[in-house]
Amino acid sequence: MIPTLEWTSEGVRFLDQTRLPLEETYVLAKTYQDVADIITTMVVRGAPAIGVSAAMGVALGARHSTATSLPALLAEIRVIGKVLAATRPTAVNLFWAIERMRRHAAELAAEPGATVATVKQGLIAEAERMYNEDIAACRALGAYGADLLPQKAGVLTHCNAGALATCGYGTALGVIRAAVESGRKIDVYADETRPFLQGARLTAWEMMKDGIPTTVICDNMAASLMRAGKLQAIVVGADRIAANGDVANKIGTYGVAVLAKEHGIPFYVAAPWSTIDLATKTGADIPIEQRSPNEVTHHAGKQLTPNHVGVWNPAFDITPAKYVTAIITERGVLRAPYPESLERLSHEAAVPA
Amino acid sequence: MIPTLEWTSEGVRFLDQTRLPLEETYVLAKTYQDVADIITTMVVRGAPAIGVSAAMGVALGARHSTATSLPALLAEIRVIGKVLAATRPTAVNLFWAIERMRRHAAELAAEPGATVATVKQGLIAEAERMYNEDIAACRALGAYGADLLPQKAGVLTHCNAGALATCGYGTALGVIRAAVESGRKIDVYADETRPFLQGARLTAWEMMKDGIPTTVICDNMAASLMRAGKLQAIVVGADRIAANGDVANKIGTYGVAVLAKEHGIPFYVAAPWSTIDLATKTGADIPIEQRSPNEVTHHAGKQLTPNHVGVWNPAFDITPAKYVTAIITERGVLRAPYPESLERLSHEAAVPA
Repeated sequence: MIPTLEWTSEGVRFLDQTRLPLEETYVLAKTYQDVADIITTMVVRGAPAIGVSAAMGVALGARHSTATSLPALLAEIRVIGKVLAATRPTAVNLFWAIERMRRHAAELAAEPGATVATVKQGLIAEAERMYNEDIAACRALGAYGADLLPQKAGVLTHCNAGALATCGYGTALGVIRAAVESGRKIDVYADETRPFLQGARLTAWEMMKDGIPTTVICDNMAASLMRAGKLQAIVVGADRIAANGDVANKIGTYGVAVLAKEHGIPFYVAAPWSTIDLATKTGADIPIEQRSPNEVTHHAGKQLTPNHVGVWNPAFDITPAKYVTAIITERGVLRAPYPESLERLSHEAAVPA
Repeated sequence: MIPTLEWTSEGVRFLDQTRLPLEETYVLAKTYQDVADIITTMVVRGAPAIGVSAAMGVALGARHSTATSLPALLAEIRVIGKVLAATRPTAVNLFWAIERMRRHAAELAAEPGATVATVKQGLIAEAERMYNEDIAACRALGAYGADLLPQKAGVLTHCNAGALATCGYGTALGVIRAAVESGRKIDVYADETRPFLQGARLTAWEMMKDGIPTTVICDNMAASLMRAGKLQAIVVGADRIAANGDVANKIGTYGVAVLAKEHGIPFYVAAPWSTIDLATKTGADIPIEQRSPNEVTHHAGKQLTPNHVGVWNPAFDITPAKYVTAIITERGVLRAPYPESLERLSHEAAVPA
């Protein structure tokens, strides 16, 4: 089990993903502001993981609150939520998790006999519940996804939608883990995923830990790999899925999807239901985070580009639903037309944790 | 004028492209073996540039020959050619240039009154002629290509097919330079081009030198850029063009071509006629160089990937002719069906230097 993040008595402990794969070090967030910094600087990343991180941040902030009345505590929780929500704009799990914590706080405060202490304790329990639900959702969607793969397959993934992007097990890599557990022979190909190299650093690291054969390629090699017949499926994660099935995910996902279509290779998106945002009509309504040019122009402190050159560094892109063969969730596998399949499954109960 | 390579009295002087963009340093090849090393280690790269480099390598090797008879000199030139031909397998200009030098040596040796000294001198003159022809070809194809671009255009290029990949001016970047000289307003987008970063380092450097607005993107951002409507054309170079119009070029070119087709953006290949290999029937017959995994796993001495992970690092890919809108050469612009247009222009005289 990869300890991506963990609630401890001293605070939230994060595996520092900026140091992987060469160093396995941990960072302890003692305050909710620490959690916000850790999300912003990508010590933790991946939509499901930052959702639960934010929930733990809310719990941590509430625990340290000096409020002496329930209304004061609830007001403070709203402020905490705003700070955490301002960290990254694209992954909807972040807002979903904060809203769930805020609503839960209000419910706890409305219970008979509620006190500041019971609300604080209840929020810690809720964050831990979300942590466990995330792992359960990954295992459930992994099993659904595994059934879509052949007995022997080359599978390309982009970025890291693994244990490191969740509380454990992973979404896209959860599908791969479940496929391997089911006896399938899977050769993983990992796009290195510039500029942050989540594929080269994180996906490769966790697949090697599990002994699953993995080959790293530069992002621009995926087309050749498809043409060479090495890939039988693509599986990626998602940062937000709109009501029409458009998918926001790590920059480069859209290109992979177009290439998959051209080569007749199924393109699967694996994500927990918390990544689905029915309030967002289409991908065009999803805000795309622009990150610092420095991520592109420098590596390991070394400058790669000439001074003053322009840089474009969007962190995510939108893959229109028409390129998505299926969306794999813990509630089942969705296929086009997505507005209908998403609406239908939205009424199903979540998998119990 | 960017001094990519130059014949000097002491040997062949190369701008060290592995040090760009931060350092503008030069390496002097004093022997033909030095030239071979310089090609292998990519101090110089780009199909047209390595062609002329090899020609200068032959001239250099011949100059230093201690042969006292014409047959001995010709035999030595064959050995020199073999050493230089073994440096890199994909770019056909290399073999074309060596063969042209070898044939020219034989012709010179057959002239009345030929001596070891006249052959040596004639080979230096031939290498310098090829150098000048290369620049003239780039200028001629640049002018043809410029006419294909709108008055205002975003143009994406992959890798570096610029002054640094030729003896000056460039092929793909020659088209851009000619377009700018013709008064067109061109915004250049440069794929950074992993793993060797020729786009981020070299294309950006030479475009900045010429004051042409340039934005660097990671390779995996090209699809989003197309979808955002920022690109009106793609122009790339080539390392070899087969008789059916299939194009070998830097890894990642094929993916860009597929994406361009999906977005209805013209995809142009700019190359001198020496890049066309009518003896190679299709792209499947072009050998693709595999380079060291180290280029992918390390950067600036820092390891990016976990130990023992697999790596795939082909230096080139094949873009099938069906994705190529036009091939721009110094003899004119070729369009599909390529077997016919290539055959037709193959009978035309080259542009005089």
